[in-house]
Amino acid sequence: MKCIDLNSDLGESFGQWRMGDDAAILPVVSSANVACGFHAGSPAGILETLSAARSNGVAVGAHVAYPDLVGFGRRAMDIASDELTADVIYQIGALQGLARAAGCVVSYVKPHGALYNTIAHDRRQALAVIAAIKAVEPSLILVALAGSPLVSLAREQGLKVVAEAFADRAYHADGTLVSRREAGAVLHDPEQVAQRMLKLINEGGVESVEGEFTRIEADSICVHGDSPGAIEMARQIRATLEHNGIAIRSFRAAR
Amino acid sequence: MKCIDLNSDLGESFGQWRMGDDAAILPVVSSANVACGFHAGSPAGILETLSAARSNGVAVGAHVAYPDLVGFGRRAMDIASDELTADVIYQIGALQGLARAAGCVVSYVKPHGALYNTIAHDRRQALAVIAAIKAVEPSLILVALAGSPLVSLAREQGLKVVAEAFADRAYHADGTLVSRREAGAVLHDPEQVAQRMLKLINEGGVESVEGEFTRIEADSICVHGDSPGAIEMARQIRATLEHNGIAIRSFRAAR
Amino acid sequence: MKCIDLNSDLGESFGQWRMGDDAAILPVVSSANVACGFHAGSPAGILETLSAARSNGVAVGAHVAYPDLVGFGRRAMDIASDELTADVIYQIGALQGLARAAGCVVSYVKPHGALYNTIAHDRRQALAVIAAIKAVEPSLILVALAGSPLVSLAREQGLKVVAEAFADRAYHADGTLVSRREAGAVLHDPEQVAQRMLKLINEGGVESVEGEFTRIEADSICVHGDSPGAIEMARQIRATLEHNGIAIRSFRAAR
Amino acid sequence: MKCIDLNSDLGESFGQWRMGDDAAILPVVSSANVACGFHAGSPAGILETLSAARSNGVAVGAHVAYPDLVGFGRRAMDIASDELTADVIYQIGALQGLARAAGCVVSYVKPHGALYNTIAHDRRQALAVIAAIKAVEPSLILVALAGSPLVSLAREQGLKVVAEAFADRAYHADGTLVSRREAGAVLHDPEQVAQRMLKLINEGGVESVEGEFTRIEADSICVHGDSPGAIEMARQIRATLEHNGIAIRSFRAAR
Repeated sequence: MKCIDLNSDLGESFGQWRMGDDAAILPVVSSANVACGFHAGSPAGILETLSAARSNGVAVGAHVAYPDLVGFGRRAMDIASDELTADVIYQIGALQGLARAAGCVVSYVKPHGALYNTIAHDRRQALAVIAAIKAVEPSLILVALAGSPLVSLAREQGLKVVAEAFADRAYHADGTLVSRREAGAVLHDPEQVAQRMLKLINEGGVESVEGEFTRIEADSICVHGDSPGAIEMARQIRATLEHNGIAIRSFRAAR
Repeated sequence: MKCIDLNSDLGESFGQWRMGDDAAILPVVSSANVACGFHAGSPAGILETLSAARSNGVAVGAHVAYPDLVGFGRRAMDIASDELTADVIYQIGALQGLARAAGCVVSYVKPHGALYNTIAHDRRQALAVIAAIKAVEPSLILVALAGSPLVSLAREQGLKVVAEAFADRAYHADGTLVSRREAGAVLHDPEQVAQRMLKLINEGGVESVEGEFTRIEADSICVHGDSPGAIEMARQIRATLEHNGIAIRSFRAAR
Repeated sequence: MKCIDLNSDLGESFGQWRMGDDAAILPVVSSANVACGFHAGSPAGILETLSAARSNGVAVGAHVAYPDLVGFGRRAMDIASDELTADVIYQIGALQGLARAAGCVVSYVKPHGALYNTIAHDRRQALAVIAAIKAVEPSLILVALAGSPLVSLAREQGLKVVAEAFADRAYHADGTLVSRREAGAVLHDPEQVAQRMLKLINEGGVESVEGEFTRIEADSICVHGDSPGAIEMARQIRATLEHNGIAIRSFRAAR
Repeated sequence: MKCIDLNSDLGESFGQWRMGDDAAILPVVSSANVACGFHAGSPAGILETLSAARSNGVAVGAHVAYPDLVGFGRRAMDIASDELTADVIYQIGALQGLARAAGCVVSYVKPHGALYNTIAHDRRQALAVIAAIKAVEPSLILVALAGSPLVSLAREQGLKVVAEAFADRAYHADGTLVSRREAGAVLHDPEQVAQRMLKLINEGGVESVEGEFTRIEADSICVHGDSPGAIEMARQIRATLEHNGIAIRSFRAAR
C-alpha cells in the first residue's frame, strides 16, 4: 500500500493573538510543524498544540525560524553562522522540553519562512542549520524543499532528509516553484490540487506551468490550515488520496 | 570531609551586551546558574558559557525567569499559572538542548530575580514552577531560599530541593534576609563574609543583625561574579573554606 | 443638546496577527485608543489604523501599556517609577510621530489593561504616568476610570481628566466595577446595555448589582470592537443614544 | 573660521546592560546619534542620554535601525518598504517625545548599522527611509555616507543631507570604504587618524590604501565612544582640529 505524509504549520498563535485552526487541521494531517517561539508561538499555546498533536497521533516537528516575531520569520536575515546554529538548537530544545511535558516526541525539523527559502540554496546558512541538528539530536529528520540543493547537502552531512512538495503551488519544468510574485503561482481549486497530488504520488511529478511533466521526488506534502478554505482543500486532498488507496502516514514511522 | 556547593549566575550577556565575567568566576564555583533567554542570555552566548562550564567541570542549572529582558527579570509579574508553567518548561528545554550541544547536562533549576523572590512565599506561582519541573524532568533539583516555605512545599510535591544561603547578605534572627532597602543588607568585606560562611558550614548558622545566632540550613552558597570585587570576594570565600578543610563540590554529586 | 464620547481600543494587531475589526468599529465611536507597540500594535499597522481614524473623523488617544507583548499588557508589573515614566513618554512620542504621518493628532492618553487597573488606585505608578504626560505634552487629556482616586489625583497634578464608564460591565453600589471573576460582571444583552448607558447619561448613574442606583460621573463610554457581537452591541448603544437625542462626540472638541 | 561636526553613537545601553561611556564622549562631540529602542536603548536610559546631551549643548539625531535587539541592528534584513517607513517614523517619534521631556530637539536622522549600509546603495530601502523622514518631519537632516548614491538620492527627494566620513576607516581611491573583512580597514593610531581628519577638512580628502589622494566631501566625522581607546582617539582628533583653528560645531547650526 502506498503512503504519503501530509504536513502543516501549527502552534502559530502568540499570546492573545490567534492564528490558524489547529483543532481543525490536526485530524487531516500526519505531521505538525510546530512553531518554537522565534517567528510565532508562545509557550502555553505551543504546549496546547503539542497535546492536541499527541491526541491526534500526529508526528511533531520543530518549525524553527529567524528571531523575528513582528515579521513572522518571513524576512531574509543575514545572520552569522554560529548565531544561527545556536538559535536553531535553542528552538529545538525548547520544543523538545514542551513535547516531553505533552507526552510526545519531536521527530523532525522543518525550517520556516525566510529561513526555509534561504537554506534551500544558501550553503553557509544551510550548514549552520545542519550543524544545529547534529549537535542537539542527529536522529532528527530534516524536511527540505524537493529538488533543492539542500536535500543532497544535508544527506552528505549525514542527516536523514525528507523532501516535500507544496500542494497549492505551481512548478516550473525544471522542478522549481513558480515565484509568488508571478500570476498563477498559487492554485486555488481543491479538486485540481487533489488530482495533482494524486499524480505526484502515482507518477512522480506534476504538470509544470510550461505544460511539460516535471519530476518531483517528495515524501511529504505541505498543506495549509490558516483559513477555512485552506482546511477544506487539505480535507479534499486527504479524501482523494485515501479514496485512491493511498494512506496518509507520517514519514517518522518509516525511519 | 565536609563539602559545600558554591553557585553563581552566568550566561547573562545578551547579543552585543556583556555582563559578568564568566571566565573568571567559573574556576571559583561548583555550580553555574545559566540564563535561559527570558531575562538574559542569547543562544550563542549561552552555548559559549555552557562549553566553558563543561571545561571547568562545573554543574549547570537552568536560571529560569519571567519574560522580561528590559527589566532583567527583576520586576514582579502577575502571570497566570499555566503560562508560568509553560514558560519554565520552555526555558529548561532550551537550555537542555544547548547543554547537549555543549556536551553537558542540566542538573538543577534555580529561578531568577523576581520569580525567585515571589515563589519563595507565593504558593500559586511556586506550584506552577514545581509543575514545570515535574513535567519536563522530575529529577531536576530545585534550588530555593533556605528557610522559605518553598523548600518544604517543593519537597512535599516530590522534588529534590537544595536550600541556599547568600554569602554577602545579612540575616534577621528569624532566618529571613534583611531587605535590600535597609542599611547593612549587603556585606562588602570579603574576609568577614568568608568567616561567616565558614561558621554557616561548621555551626549551621550565622550571626543575625539583631545580634543573635540564627540557624540556616543550606547546602549551597550563592556568590556573585558581576564585578571584579565580587569575583575577589568569591575567591576569598573559596580559599577560606578550602583552607579549613571544606571541599567545594556540586550538590549534584551527592544526589 | 446632550453629547457623550464613545471610545474603543484599536490598532491591536501585531505583524501578521490580526485583532479586532478597526474598519467596523471606527464609524461607531468618536475616540480611538490606539495601541503604541508595548502591549500590541506594530508600526505599519498602527499607521493604517491612524489613517482610518482620520478618515472617520475620530479622535486619537495613546493606549499606553506595560512592555508585555506576550501578555498583551494584562499582567500587573512592579515597574520602577522612572522606567514607567520613560516608557509612557516613548509610547506617546511614537504615536505622535505616526499620527503626524497620518495627518492627525494625538489628543488624549488612556492607559491599557493592567496599567489602567493599577494606576486607578496605585498612587506611585499613577504619579509616574502623570509625570510622563506632563513631560511630553501637558495638554493631553487623561482618560481614567470614573470614580477612581486617579481622577482627582490627576486633576490635582494639573491634568485634564475625562472619566469613563464601561458599557458592558456591572457596577457595585459604591461605584466600583464588579470583578470579572464574579458571575454577572459582564453584560451581554445589547438592548439592556444601551438602555443602561441612556440612563447613565440622562440620570447620572446605573443600577448596581445590589439593586440600588449608583452615581457614575462619566464623559466617555468604553465599548468593544474585538468580536462581531461586540461591534453589534456598540452599534446598538450608538443608535439608542442618537435616537434619544444624544450626540456622539469626542470630548476633545469640548476642551 | 572653518568648522566641522563630530558625531558619535550614544544611548546604546539596554535595561541593565551598559554600552559605551556617554558621559565621557559627550564633551568631545557636537552631535549625538541616539538609539531609539530598535537595535538598542530602553526609554529610561535614552532619556538620561538626552538630558546629558542637552547639558553638553550637543545636537541630537535619531539613530534609527532595523528591529533587531539581539543582533544590535547589524544584520541586513529584507524588510517591506511600508514596514520600514513606519518603523522609522515610530522611532523618530519616540525619540522626539523623549527629547521634549529632556528639553531638547531631534534635528537629524542617522540610520544605524545594517540599515545604514543597506540604504547607502539600496534604492528601495533608501526611499522608504526618506519617505519616513518626509512624513514625520521634513526639516530633519539625513546623515549619509559621503560619496554614496544615497546623498544625491535624498537631496533629489527634497531632504537636507549631511555627508559623513569615518575617522578610523581606510578608503579606496574611488572614495569607498575598505571592507572590514580586509586587513588595514580600521586605523588604530590616534595621531595618524587626527592628521588624516585635518587633511580631510583642509584639503578635501585623504590618502587611499592605493596610495592616491581621494576626494571625500564630508560635513561630519563619525568617531566612537565604545571603549577607552576610542574615546582617547576622539579627544585627539578634537584637540588636533582645534589646535589648527577648526571649530567643532554641529551642522544643525548652519542649516
